[in-house]
Amino acid sequence: MTESLSLLKELIRRESVTPNDAGCQNLLAKRLTPLGFCDERMNFSDTQNVWLRRGQNPPLFVFLGHTDVVPPGPLTAWDSPPFEPTLREGKLYGRGTADMKGGIAAFITAVERFIAKHPDHKGSIAIMLTSDEEGIATHGVVKMVEILQQRQEKIDWCLVGEPSSDQKIGDVIRVGRRGSLCAKLTVFGIQGHVAYPDLAENPIHSFAPALKELTEETWDHGNEFFPPTRLQVSNINGGTGAENIIPGQLEIQFNLRFCTELDEAIIKTRTQAILDKYDFKYDLQWRLSGNPFLTSQGELIDATHTAIKSICGFETLDDTGGGTSDGRFIAPTGAQVIELGPVNASIHKINEHIDLQDLETLSQIYQQILLNLLA
Amino acid sequence: MTESLSLLKELIRRESVTPNDAGCQNLLAKRLTPLGFCDERMNFSDTQNVWLRRGQNPPLFVFLGHTDVVPPGPLTAWDSPPFEPTLREGKLYGRGTADMKGGIAAFITAVERFIAKHPDHKGSIAIMLTSDEEGIATHGVVKMVEILQQRQEKIDWCLVGEPSSDQKIGDVIRVGRRGSLCAKLTVFGIQGHVAYPDLAENPIHSFAPALKELTEETWDHGNEFFPPTRLQVSNINGGTGAENIIPGQLEIQFNLRFCTELDEAIIKTRTQAILDKYDFKYDLQWRLSGNPFLTSQGELIDATHTAIKSICGFETLDDTGGGTSDGRFIAPTGAQVIELGPVNASIHKINEHIDLQDLETLSQIYQQILLNLLA
Ligand SMILES: [Zn+2]
Ligand SMILES: [Zn+2]
Repeated sequence: MTESLSLLKELIRRESVTPNDAGCQNLLAKRLTPLGFCDERMNFSDTQNVWLRRGQNPPLFVFLGHTDVVPPGPLTAWDSPPFEPTLREGKLYGRGTADMKGGIAAFITAVERFIAKHPDHKGSIAIMLTSDEEGIATHGVVKMVEILQQRQEKIDWCLVGEPSSDQKIGDVIRVGRRGSLCAKLTVFGIQGHVAYPDLAENPIHSFAPALKELTEETWDHGNEFFPPTRLQVSNINGGTGAENIIPGQLEIQFNLRFCTELDEAIIKTRTQAILDKYDFKYDLQWRLSGNPFLTSQGELIDATHTAIKSICGFETLDDTGGGTSDGRFIAPTGAQVIELGPVNASIHKINEHIDLQDLETLSQIYQQILLNLLA
Repeated sequence: MTESLSLLKELIRRESVTPNDAGCQNLLAKRLTPLGFCDERMNFSDTQNVWLRRGQNPPLFVFLGHTDVVPPGPLTAWDSPPFEPTLREGKLYGRGTADMKGGIAAFITAVERFIAKHPDHKGSIAIMLTSDEEGIATHGVVKMVEILQQRQEKIDWCLVGEPSSDQKIGDVIRVGRRGSLCAKLTVFGIQGHVAYPDLAENPIHSFAPALKELTEETWDHGNEFFPPTRLQVSNINGGTGAENIIPGQLEIQFNLRFCTELDEAIIKTRTQAILDKYDFKYDLQWRLSGNPFLTSQGELIDATHTAIKSICGFETLDDTGGGTSDGRFIAPTGAQVIELGPVNASIHKINEHIDLQDLETLSQIYQQILLNLLA
């Protein structure tokens, strides 16, 4: 059994359902402190965070990860227990194998091998771990970045071990993410009886043309790095339940995944312009979940491309799709940020797994990236 | 104190919240049987119904009413207890004074006076009472009509004592009602994550243009007797509650109040044609609550117009507005049906009341109608 697999099994056995860490960070800190890493805990509220750094000099290379996992769902649906790492046909099954304890195991062992060969490497290496990436993500990386910025500890390169790969390991890396903006809209009408619509004002009817326009709007055409901005209505609720009552208000929630062609202010202005075309009163509350970020060039992306080419023999694809990740908190500090990790097909699902060969290949790529940048 | 007022007070004291009759029908039956009315109970399930008929010959004139009332709402909001009939400034307050124990008291005493003067009147007179008009109306008049039809007991003229009047007694009578058709629509999509809209199918987005079209549709232009057909969406619900999940389906309820320019089949066809223009799967369930009906001419309407003119000194207005009433179950038998009763401003509200002079005037009009038709 390889070191990566052995470590991954130990991590899977810890039932670290978000925001619990269940001892994962302790395990990893104990492995790395003998190699010269300083072990600094940055816990907030119910969230466990650890900052493990080796060296004081720039440039600073960071592996970023989360030890928490999403709940396993119905246990009976799993072919083997989700927190009992199980090998079947060359794959390891368990909650978190792909998202993202597999990535963590791969980069920890990569760091160990790299330091064994290059104990006097250039710059510094840090491991940054949180236990609330799968939750609301308010007490994890966002807080750690605040601390690092306060003491002017600057990250140059950040590699997030999230499952970026599509069909095979290394085929896709994420070099950015779209922004995410959430809105809660309330449309006000006047409640009444369906037999007397002129005495009422139906907010569902008032909103109907605006809904059509919002859902059909072309926000932008994307760009070289990003797909077009998209709006999705996630919730719409109006009505008393009675079939003969016109409701007094309508509640709508929608989300925009937006690219670097737009910003928060432009989206708000354009949304309000659409709503204001129509004759209804409304209240609109916004919440910015993250701005878009992009690492379109630099040493980190070059080192990663070269490493994947040399280990896998093919060119990787730079991509900016998918949801948000903790990378959104690192990028604004000026760091180069990319995401490279396991195949993501099984994440958050029943029978989540990682291919054993993928795990080894991923660890080799990580090691090669360190070599390219810090040897 | 007049007979109508005295009887109305006795009825108000009985707390006949739908579907309870609380002894009202017994009280009325006991008054009328000595005058030659046969007392026939037609109770179904939790509903009390009574059919009181005097005479065997045609034509048959029926006063239709309901002894049940809507719940009083918060007792503390009333200026006097809702089931304690209370006189203040020429008005009697209490739940059911206007809807519709006032109408019942007025027609019972009108019948008593009419029979006293015309014991050998033409045709027959019947009083038809139910206790579930304010509820789901499945065990009341609809069942009684079935029985009458089975034994070929034909109603020629039916006067419903529901509160039709607008500003003063007799200013408006209802000569018909719109139909009511309810629909439950489910729009099917594919659940997914807002970050991956191409892997999902958002039913809110799919339905948006159809919603706009349904709510903006001109169904007809009404006619001489009816306002235009109107559709109202009463409920719309889609979404998991989570702000980042595209829901798998969307539930919509809507209602059409339709006039005699359309029928159930045409509405269904046109609705489906609108939905089928768009590219989504749906399930659509219909429930017909009542067809439209109209008594545009005949002896009953003539007798009513003449009576109001002679008692009140003005021309009444024929109208077809408002909600549904039990008249919808009588009209299909071929009877002429009109509604004439108290001013409706306070019905179903706190401090429901009837003007004492209105009560007397109404009873006089009822008596005059009997005189016009059966003397
Ligand atoms: Zn993850
Ligand atoms: Zn009524």
